[in-house]
Amino acid sequence: MAISARNGLKGKIEDVKLGEVMASIKIAVDEPAVITAVITRESAEELSLAEGDEVSAVIKSTEIMVEK
Amino acid sequence: MAISARNGLKGKIEDVKLGEVMASIKIAVDEPAVITAVITRESAEELSLAEGDEVSAVIKSTEIMVEK
Amino acid sequence: MAISARNGLKGKIEDVKLGEVMASIKIAVDEPAVITAVITRESAEELSLAEGDEVSAVIKSTEIMVEK
Amino acid sequence: MAISARNGLKGKIEDVKLGEVMASIKIAVDEPAVITAVITRESAEELSLAEGDEVSAVIKSTEIMVEK
Amino acid sequence: MAISARNGLKGKIEDVKLGEVMASIKIAVDEPAVITAVITRESAEELSLAEGDEVSAVIKSTEIMVEK
Amino acid sequence: MAISARNGLKGKIEDVKLGEVMASIKIAVDEPAVITAVITRESAEELSLAEGDEVSAVIKSTEIMVEK
Repeated sequence: MAISARNGLKGKIEDVKLGEVMASIKIAVDEPAVITAVITRESAEELSLAEGDEVSAVIKSTEIMVEK
Repeated sequence: MAISARNGLKGKIEDVKLGEVMASIKIAVDEPAVITAVITRESAEELSLAEGDEVSAVIKSTEIMVEK
Repeated sequence: MAISARNGLKGKIEDVKLGEVMASIKIAVDEPAVITAVITRESAEELSLAEGDEVSAVIKSTEIMVEK
Repeated sequence: MAISARNGLKGKIEDVKLGEVMASIKIAVDEPAVITAVITRESAEELSLAEGDEVSAVIKSTEIMVEK
Repeated sequence: MAISARNGLKGKIEDVKLGEVMASIKIAVDEPAVITAVITRESAEELSLAEGDEVSAVIKSTEIMVEK
Repeated sequence: MAISARNGLKGKIEDVKLGEVMASIKIAVDEPAVITAVITRESAEELSLAEGDEVSAVIKSTEIMVEK
């Protein structure tokens, strides 16, 4: 079985904090990986994104899943 | 100015593919980082997530933003 | 009034758990429905998704809304 | 390997539509399942959500992944 | 029927752009509203968020639905 | 540095509520803005979205970030 969300970042759990309903998991990511961001064409053009650009992939914590 | 989404992964753009409305940006991430995943407490317990576990952070492409 | 998020799954609430800020709601879905997933073309091709395939729609809990 | 996103809805693909960057996948869901929605406590209270309520789980298409 | 996603911003459509699979809709928002952001407690503390602060609510386009 | 998520709504924090893991931030948005929603072409067509339509942009709280 494989899932369509292919962006996987391998790492080690550094901290687990449990709330009543939610939990936050800190993961130290230490291996290189290639990830794919999907944004609007308009944003890509406004930022003039092009091959070779130094960028950051930014992700809200509630969008990150954990696979073990 | 700082944004609440603190999960940032530095890398270099490998490919930009433009559609009519959307664009996909492939980013080679090459620096270690610590990221925080927020999941349900129930999932954290069912997976027995604990400090030191080897895991993957999995992210759907539509949830990844690009900062340049 | 109608909303663009048309994926609706009818069911009955089995459990409500309240935290300080968040709440988790368990819903027993019992009626057939057709739902639409939007993924990258690349993922669709890598998984060779085609009519007739047996698959699972997978959804992170924080992405599910409740309509009553 | 197991993923923290435990909401899985089994079904059969009815249609695949490919764009340049994105693809939409229609899935006929035909098996009962229990899914968990995480919303704010405030919304849960304003809607007076309680065990036994008939509700719909509503999901934006861009939030649905496909596992095969 | 009411939905748990209570953040609604009234406005007028300025532009509709159709792709093969996706569409982008530009909406001129012109009425004051109160919206609720849910972030990690850690981010709230690192940004020292407090009543009266001038801030921006930032939202990725793929997370915005349209109700008509 | 600029981020691809360009939808920014300026306002003032009205309330901060801290849970153990999550925090909810109420923001009074008081300036006009143009925001972009990305939905499926199918939804746009089913709702017959067109320039000049009075609509609401609807957003789940967990999808809203705060910039300060």
